[in-house]
Amino acid sequence: MEGSEPYGVRPIGVVRSSLSAPAEAPNQAFEGAPEAVLEIAPTFSDALHRIRVGDELILLTWLHLADRNVLQTHPTGDTKLPLTGVFRTRSPDRPNPIGVHRVTVTALESPTSVRVGALEAVDGTPIVDLKIAMREAPEA
Amino acid sequence: MEGSEPYGVRPIGVVRSSLSAPAEAPNQAFEGAPEAVLEIAPTFSDALHRIRVGDELILLTWLHLADRNVLQTHPTGDTKLPLTGVFRTRSPDRPNPIGVHRVTVTALESPTSVRVGALEAVDGTPIVDLKIAMREAPEA
Repeated sequence: MEGSEPYGVRPIGVVRSSLSAPAEAPNQAFEGAPEAVLEIAPTFSDALHRIRVGDELILLTWLHLADRNVLQTHPTGDTKLPLTGVFRTRSPDRPNPIGVHRVTVTALESPTSVRVGALEAVDGTPIVDLKIAMREAPEA
Repeated sequence: MEGSEPYGVRPIGVVRSSLSAPAEAPNQAFEGAPEAVLEIAPTFSDALHRIRVGDELILLTWLHLADRNVLQTHPTGDTKLPLTGVFRTRSPDRPNPIGVHRVTVTALESPTSVRVGALEAVDGTPIVDLKIAMREAPEA
């Protein structure tokens, strides 16, 4: 595994949000995050086909401000909590800083602009994937 | 966004499973997937600190057999279902083929071997990240 070539992940879009600094962003969407717009690159518009208002999506982002060398952290930044491996936290700092967010589609503003509910990612965060969130026969 | 450099994702480990071919693998873990072992590279053992039996983790994989040029598909391969953008499906074929799986830790077999319950990924699938799954104050 070690020494193998990295895989190349290309952004498919970008988050537009009123959150501009990580210090403003809640740790989790349910902690009061604002709505946001997913601006998808026109190249990928066909991949949005049939997305509709009310869909629950899994959004994958590239946490571009993260420190990729961190292996342990105090969860939620609380130094009273014991040091924990980053693979047992939601810290953005980790070897491959991919964010996983669950979002609800609230409006389709253009063929490639998808408005979503509460999202804790800051403005300018690159988007790398979208998937339907439901797990039981969801995709029809 | 277009023309930007790709981000480099390095595998942190590999899935060991009795599933050897995608045709054998269920689409979703709840459809009868077997247990599996997450073999993490020793370099990253510190990042597993405090993971314990019973933890629910989000596992991110690199779907190395996927076709990255596919933008639309018939969900679950059923041609009676309408063509749908891959961003509204769980198809492995997509521009950045990152798999998202929810797994439960069932045993710690070595400092870097984590046995998990039902997982639909085939043997040899590269692992790119692990996170705790719980969303409410989970990380203590």
